[in-house]
Amino acid sequence: METIFSYQSLYDFTFSVFKSIGCNDEHAATAAKVLLSADARGIDSHGVARLTGYVRLWEAKRINSNPEIIIKHETPSTAVVDGDAGLGLVVAPSAMQMAIDKAEKVGTGWVSVCNSNHFGIAGFHAMMALKKDMIGIAMTNASALVAPTFSIERMLGTNPIAVAIPAGEEPPFIADFATTTAANGKLEILQRKKADAPLGWVQDATGKPTTNAVALKSGGSLLPLGSDREHSSHKGYALGSIVDIFSAVLSGASYGPWAPPFPAYVPMPENMPGKGLGHFFGAMRIDAFRPAAEFKCQMDNWIRRFRNAKPVQGFEKVLVPGDPERELETIRMKEGIPVEHSVVKDLQLLADRFNLVLLQ
Amino acid sequence: METIFSYQSLYDFTFSVFKSIGCNDEHAATAAKVLLSADARGIDSHGVARLTGYVRLWEAKRINSNPEIIIKHETPSTAVVDGDAGLGLVVAPSAMQMAIDKAEKVGTGWVSVCNSNHFGIAGFHAMMALKKDMIGIAMTNASALVAPTFSIERMLGTNPIAVAIPAGEEPPFIADFATTTAANGKLEILQRKKADAPLGWVQDATGKPTTNAVALKSGGSLLPLGSDREHSSHKGYALGSIVDIFSAVLSGASYGPWAPPFPAYVPMPENMPGKGLGHFFGAMRIDAFRPAAEFKCQMDNWIRRFRNAKPVQGFEKVLVPGDPERELETIRMKEGIPVEHSVVKDLQLLADRFNLVLLQ
Repeated sequence: METIFSYQSLYDFTFSVFKSIGCNDEHAATAAKVLLSADARGIDSHGVARLTGYVRLWEAKRINSNPEIIIKHETPSTAVVDGDAGLGLVVAPSAMQMAIDKAEKVGTGWVSVCNSNHFGIAGFHAMMALKKDMIGIAMTNASALVAPTFSIERMLGTNPIAVAIPAGEEPPFIADFATTTAANGKLEILQRKKADAPLGWVQDATGKPTTNAVALKSGGSLLPLGSDREHSSHKGYALGSIVDIFSAVLSGASYGPWAPPFPAYVPMPENMPGKGLGHFFGAMRIDAFRPAAEFKCQMDNWIRRFRNAKPVQGFEKVLVPGDPERELETIRMKEGIPVEHSVVKDLQLLADRFNLVLLQ
Repeated sequence: METIFSYQSLYDFTFSVFKSIGCNDEHAATAAKVLLSADARGIDSHGVARLTGYVRLWEAKRINSNPEIIIKHETPSTAVVDGDAGLGLVVAPSAMQMAIDKAEKVGTGWVSVCNSNHFGIAGFHAMMALKKDMIGIAMTNASALVAPTFSIERMLGTNPIAVAIPAGEEPPFIADFATTTAANGKLEILQRKKADAPLGWVQDATGKPTTNAVALKSGGSLLPLGSDREHSSHKGYALGSIVDIFSAVLSGASYGPWAPPFPAYVPMPENMPGKGLGHFFGAMRIDAFRPAAEFKCQMDNWIRRFRNAKPVQGFEKVLVPGDPERELETIRMKEGIPVEHSVVKDLQLLADRFNLVLLQ
């Protein structure tokens, strides 16, 4: 069912595919690095599994492989960036870098982006801040799959938030999560297996909770974090809305139910109120608040205390956000990255099309 | 069971109580205004119901009624504030104002606060930004009641987040929520009624989910937003952790299980790693991103589209964050604020003690 690839082979192949659609060397390298970080960290739905999707968006002329990324407006601590319909995988690191540069100068930097596309995993961009002793924040809106509390209409994307916080001797704190109960990638796995979903992940077309994982394909919706009103789905709905507004209303991107779809065969929404997808990035210099060494020492203490919290019987330990992905990354960089058969087939089609060789 | 008070009577009484513990006029007025905003907006657990609690903290010398609130460190877009053990109700608006002032100058302002106390409802502080055409953000840590995913130990407070976003003709978007499935105030209501809690709000001392609302008083814990691992409680745990770190680790306040308790009879934790409670505030000038009029017009469109999303049969309409509290505020400012009998008794005791008159 799976083939194991080395990180380097997948990277080289991905780089070549991005080159083949017209990216320059620098952009192709960035895009490949961002995309592969998902596979390395175990977020398989956002890695090479999406490579064909990006190529189809390029074919449909919804992605510009040679974008001119420009600042539309700025202040010392903010900017709005127009991604020129570029790959989000390229636009996002460029915008995050602007946030970091602003933070160097005035303590923090905040960049809202319009006219972009899917940017891979939010965590990659947030983590860019770590090496500068900054806290990094990244979020994005996405095409509508999620129904607000009390609604049967898909109004929001899975709208993820990532926050990366440096520590000292301990590895950094890295939260990276969709603002829904379940990420869409998890649903896709159940759909392929024809397995049921836990109640609380999905509702059907009438708004009734269902265990039917394919309900999403017949008018159903993903549920906001919290699942139902009694368990505070209005909070997940509010979080997803905040991501939508910071990413798209602040920047002039298309928001809510008008966010452009990832699959190229889905027609673009009518009457879009803005341009493309939106992202939002933040960088806060630690020493704009307190000396970085002092902060990191306290973060080590925070992390150790939480990791040593008493576990429920039967569970080995309490995790700190970022632990599972980091552990998987260590394994996969050494032992290789397993890629599902259906994805390997897609990659082979790309290889044929662009005259490339797909090596393990 | 309840007595109706006019807003003005409750305000005057609260002002006088704060004066009686040594606040100056300005601080007493601010504290009363912040506290009463909770009663007006229907968050009864955070309003006059807590007045006696603040007085007890003052008696226990854990609150300084005459604080000198100072900036310990700053950059153009950031500051760390020491609240000098003052009422959070006074420290928080002062710190939020600093964030707003910084945003005026460089686009955004971010203030982390240590050595403070309970600050009332987060929403009040976030909403201060609205009249300046800014987005306001407020969060705070709080004494530990919440167990991380897989843990039986209380490690985090209910750590709320508020985000206020201006609109044009529509009322603003105001999200204000604890990062737990249920706010502690809701549990307290069930405890008084001796009623069961829905499964997913609380776990018992062994980490088993329970409907027993008083389990919290015998070693149990509140659950992070998401309730259990299958429904992504690790996301609520991550959110609560981010609030804790931004509010307390960044500022030098006490964090995690060491956050100081609100009830004055609970001893202070040993080996506290910082000073008092911590808060975090942000202000982002809309026109640091795009012209405010343009943004507000799009926010109106956003709000109307969401409010008109198709409701589930049996539900009248889809709400926008802030709708229920605003509707209640309109009613309560006109018809008065209902106060529970037990709270009225507490207020009467305060009246006796400070030689005040409690009028309806």
